[in-house]
Amino acid sequence: MSLTVVGSVAFDALETPFGKRDKLLGGAGTHFALSASFFTNVRVIGVVGNDFTEAEWNVFKRHNINTDDIEIVADGKTFFWRGRYDYDLNTAHTLETQLNVFETFQPKPSEESKNSRLLFLANILPMLQKQVREQCLNAEFVAMDTMNFWIDSMKGAVLETIKVVDCVIINDAEARQLADEPNIHKAAKKIMEIGDLRALVIKRGEYGAALFTKDDYFAIPAYPLESVFDPTGAGDTFAGGFMGYLASQVEITEDALRRAMIYGSVMASFNVEEFGTERVDRLTQDEINERFRGFKRMTHFEEIPFERAISA
Amino acid sequence: MSLTVVGSVAFDALETPFGKRDKLLGGAGTHFALSASFFTNVRVIGVVGNDFTEAEWNVFKRHNINTDDIEIVADGKTFFWRGRYDYDLNTAHTLETQLNVFETFQPKPSEESKNSRLLFLANILPMLQKQVREQCLNAEFVAMDTMNFWIDSMKGAVLETIKVVDCVIINDAEARQLADEPNIHKAAKKIMEIGDLRALVIKRGEYGAALFTKDDYFAIPAYPLESVFDPTGAGDTFAGGFMGYLASQVEITEDALRRAMIYGSVMASFNVEEFGTERVDRLTQDEINERFRGFKRMTHFEEIPFERAISA
Repeated sequence: MSLTVVGSVAFDALETPFGKRDKLLGGAGTHFALSASFFTNVRVIGVVGNDFTEAEWNVFKRHNINTDDIEIVADGKTFFWRGRYDYDLNTAHTLETQLNVFETFQPKPSEESKNSRLLFLANILPMLQKQVREQCLNAEFVAMDTMNFWIDSMKGAVLETIKVVDCVIINDAEARQLADEPNIHKAAKKIMEIGDLRALVIKRGEYGAALFTKDDYFAIPAYPLESVFDPTGAGDTFAGGFMGYLASQVEITEDALRRAMIYGSVMASFNVEEFGTERVDRLTQDEINERFRGFKRMTHFEEIPFERAISA
Repeated sequence: MSLTVVGSVAFDALETPFGKRDKLLGGAGTHFALSASFFTNVRVIGVVGNDFTEAEWNVFKRHNINTDDIEIVADGKTFFWRGRYDYDLNTAHTLETQLNVFETFQPKPSEESKNSRLLFLANILPMLQKQVREQCLNAEFVAMDTMNFWIDSMKGAVLETIKVVDCVIINDAEARQLADEPNIHKAAKKIMEIGDLRALVIKRGEYGAALFTKDDYFAIPAYPLESVFDPTGAGDTFAGGFMGYLASQVEITEDALRRAMIYGSVMASFNVEEFGTERVDRLTQDEINERFRGFKRMTHFEEIPFERAISA
């Protein structure tokens, strides 16, 4: 198998200015895998409770996502998050978190997962991320996410995990916080050095995303959307498109990383158009390619060196 | 003459975390003209007092900026602004404003200015902007700036001015405020319609800039800078590069507008590297073209449609 993700599989309840849902399939592992499944074969390492029904399993099945490494705790309940977004949709307000079976989650990668070529460590306890990375030593390209909560409470552990991966995918506030540096380019340089990273992806929401590599810099705007319904999972959907595309490529070159940034942004742009996994669940490859071409149209310009015609 | 700007010519006093200056040449008209002078011949319509010295006039002279329409008020003092930037450099805190001769400024375009092919209405009272536009009826492409203060206090007048120009160049907070709409793409559509505009440029600071035209959308990141010294005048320097480049072109096509966005961003990126006009004053065409190529490098990707190799 080419790509494995370790991360949460969850139920979300949401309130946004556009509506309310009591129970949506969610979680970083879910959003990531669903997105990546359009590009490659994916395995998920995770845990759910006895409240996980056929309807949820069917979402994974429809997209040929391998769930052999999702443990089912017979006397437990699935991780549950309830949140609210206000009018601007930029900030998620957590109303309720029930860790449930996720509280004692011990990832148990199978042999197949251990032999995955690419590995994504979604946002879980940094020590667990490191442990999974060390169990999957054959992975040729390993990326990780993290969040402000871990940077606040156990920065040392986050930094130790960064040292054993090839790529970090975080948002700009997290990058500034992690490097303790307000200038994003200085912050990026610092994080690249700490981890001796091949790539650092900084997600900037409606402003797009930036890719830092050892000798290069690439930046793209976000896909223009007039309606954003639900930003939950956008970051993991981005990471899924990014890693899924890379997994489909024979070699991870600078060019492939750049296209992966576009596919990540394309997938995230679909994810936010409806609640939970609804939009991505019924995406087609044509829709993905059409939006990829949209990125080319909106960023392309001809390079014609300026020569002043009128002498000054 | 190909390009005329009406706007402030001023003295600025600045405090930033990187230093302090008591008297810098500033003002929207100044920053705009200096930037545009690298691409075309520029005229400035403005007003100064008796404290404007040879040193200041020499900056304009060095760049062949025509100052015939800058009125000198013999018993008055030049517009003065004192401001402070804190560590993040995003917000200018005004400490003191002395309008001085600017308070009763009545723009008096000469025949040469009235026959300018392009016209930029920098951020002044919207009624004055409209008046100048109506005096320069031959201008084939007219752009304007504005600010939150006018949108707050006389939105009607701002909207009336928007109706007589071809292009609006503002920042994203101003666009949202003007359209009373948090989604930037909806806001842009609304402003485009109000003004029946050919182009709307939305500046997003460290996140880049976006160009909206009737049927197209173009967005670019900002040039990556590890050190920003003084953001004063960045917006006007952007507008100067944008309009200056357009003035150098025989026809204002979609392609030319896109390249103008790059030149605007290039010029703004130099402006913030030092205090006031210091960096732009000694720029070279080679430096400008080098940074233009940098924009191409950091935004380019190959368009290779994805075809899933492994069947799902």
